[in-house]
Amino acid sequence: MTNNAFGSYAARAALVGPVDAAAEASAREHHDQLTKPRGSLGQLEALGIQLAAISGQDPPPVPAPGAVAVFAADHGVVAEGVTPWPQVVTAQMVANFVAGGAAINVLARQAGATVTVVDVGVATDLDALGVPDVPALLRRRIRAGTANLADGPAMSAEEAAAARDVGAAVAGELVAAGARVLVTGDMGIGNTTASAAVIAAITGQPAHKVTGRGTGIDDAMLALKTDVVARATERVPVGADALTVLAEVGGLEIAALAGFIVAGASHRVPVVVDGVIAGAGLLAAHADCPGVLPYVVAGHRSTEPGATAVLDHLGLEPVIDLGLRLGEGSGACLALGPLEAAARILGEMATFESAGVGE
Amino acid sequence: MTNNAFGSYAARAALVGPVDAAAEASAREHHDQLTKPRGSLGQLEALGIQLAAISGQDPPPVPAPGAVAVFAADHGVVAEGVTPWPQVVTAQMVANFVAGGAAINVLARQAGATVTVVDVGVATDLDALGVPDVPALLRRRIRAGTANLADGPAMSAEEAAAARDVGAAVAGELVAAGARVLVTGDMGIGNTTASAAVIAAITGQPAHKVTGRGTGIDDAMLALKTDVVARATERVPVGADALTVLAEVGGLEIAALAGFIVAGASHRVPVVVDGVIAGAGLLAAHADCPGVLPYVVAGHRSTEPGATAVLDHLGLEPVIDLGLRLGEGSGACLALGPLEAAARILGEMATFESAGVGE
Repeated sequence: MTNNAFGSYAARAALVGPVDAAAEASAREHHDQLTKPRGSLGQLEALGIQLAAISGQDPPPVPAPGAVAVFAADHGVVAEGVTPWPQVVTAQMVANFVAGGAAINVLARQAGATVTVVDVGVATDLDALGVPDVPALLRRRIRAGTANLADGPAMSAEEAAAARDVGAAVAGELVAAGARVLVTGDMGIGNTTASAAVIAAITGQPAHKVTGRGTGIDDAMLALKTDVVARATERVPVGADALTVLAEVGGLEIAALAGFIVAGASHRVPVVVDGVIAGAGLLAAHADCPGVLPYVVAGHRSTEPGATAVLDHLGLEPVIDLGLRLGEGSGACLALGPLEAAARILGEMATFESAGVGE
Repeated sequence: MTNNAFGSYAARAALVGPVDAAAEASAREHHDQLTKPRGSLGQLEALGIQLAAISGQDPPPVPAPGAVAVFAADHGVVAEGVTPWPQVVTAQMVANFVAGGAAINVLARQAGATVTVVDVGVATDLDALGVPDVPALLRRRIRAGTANLADGPAMSAEEAAAARDVGAAVAGELVAAGARVLVTGDMGIGNTTASAAVIAAITGQPAHKVTGRGTGIDDAMLALKTDVVARATERVPVGADALTVLAEVGGLEIAALAGFIVAGASHRVPVVVDGVIAGAGLLAAHADCPGVLPYVVAGHRSTEPGATAVLDHLGLEPVIDLGLRLGEGSGACLALGPLEAAARILGEMATFESAGVGE
């Protein structure tokens, strides 16, 4: 089975090209002419150079407006008792996103970014919950939550591929609507368990190194969760392709995030990834399509150990490090300010020559 | 000699009161009712609680607009060869700030903050350099740069006190003009040397632990600089008061920053401090007026070792950690976004009850 069989995801993956080396080199040289000691803006300089490479322009355009896509889905593994939260909370939080009352709504409003919620596999009936039909809610449900990954595959390869296609399509729709930077978001009770399993399977790290407390579970629940992750990961063949990993131990929103990241890169926009759920999606995207990496900005360092495993595995430096572990895209959304600053520095600062400094 | 003799600084220091414990407790409890796992917004929660404590309101008002004050001064210690940059660059950068072309101008514009440049001791004649008279440039020069702190006191206690008064007055003027958060900025060739000496004198850390490469000096220059700091610090009596430290080994902008921070706290606005220069000013402010600390937000972690020594000494967690070492207030200005987010989270997020989540 090749990924080329999987519709729009495969089409977008084939279009992921290299970033612009000339614009990258220009921005690097440009930075040394600005009125500041060389290298004194640290990671902000690296981000500006990356934006130039992605856009093919020096100075790069300001990466705005942003668009956050919150992919929501449920997880059959909650039957194992890996989280104290009832599954209905996924749907209740979808209602909260639609009403504008969640953390990601607040942070996105401040950043001037849109929030689009994508039901890619919520188990609870959203209509029964009274969630209104609004343009900011995309109903793209593949199935009503995954199967219990502790017992067997979370979903079929076809379902994982379909979720990836959903993510790819959403990225395309947001870019077509004017987004110039994409932000990954996620919601799903139980999704740190599936993410830990995906991260363990792809990085080869043992379960106890990548499994965390999620929403804040106690020691006993963490031990149970780690055991679930370890046993599930054992079923994944060494060297399995990304789609196999996603189907066996992943989640519908994790697969969608992989598609979203790949498609964002194919549209040549920066994709700011959030924490551990997005990290699992990023690993799956990167395993299948390594060319995505230069388009990716690690939004923040989540306190979840799996998130740091992803950053280390891919050699990424996060922008924000504020001890967040909320998900929804919250950490990535906070990175939009520094990312915009990185572009503005190249676009607006005076050079030593123009300002007559150091002559 | 008591600090009460020193005009407006002393008047403001006497007005620094405790933060509001009731609003602080309310915000802490409020956070646990918002639609997110308890504690999952990490340091953003702590910042929101701090803003409530400072303002006496839960939710706290959004801390905007911001006002950056860039205190500019020269340092006689440049005669020792502690920096490769000529002293005239301080004045040239003042011209650059006034023209809007420096990094701090770019970052402040993005954050919706004003930039006010305060000449508290620039050695070069700004008029001869053609710097225009504009409202954003305050000419409050105490003297044309400090004396060489390697040879003797950088300035008299009266001059240090006058510089502190300048800083205190500027904070008051900016708050009166509408600022709801103050940001410390600085410019002065040679000022990382004076800052390291102030930090060593107040924290008791050895010179080699707090002296850094500043704008990017080589090993030989760093060794020379560290030796200058060590010898100058030896002259400061153990347990010397803040004004004595500032006069002996400080700088005019460092003293002004101390006054700015104390006065900001007295006006009950958050004061976001930048890197190592601001850190030296903060230590001097705190040594004289410990009550300032609850009003202070550590904007970022500079790569200068002295900056981390200050954070450790005062137990502060920085908001931004992007490897910056530019000064001007650049790191602190980047913290304004997360700080505003911290207030908006408390002001705009739904509660579990209002959103019907987790019922």
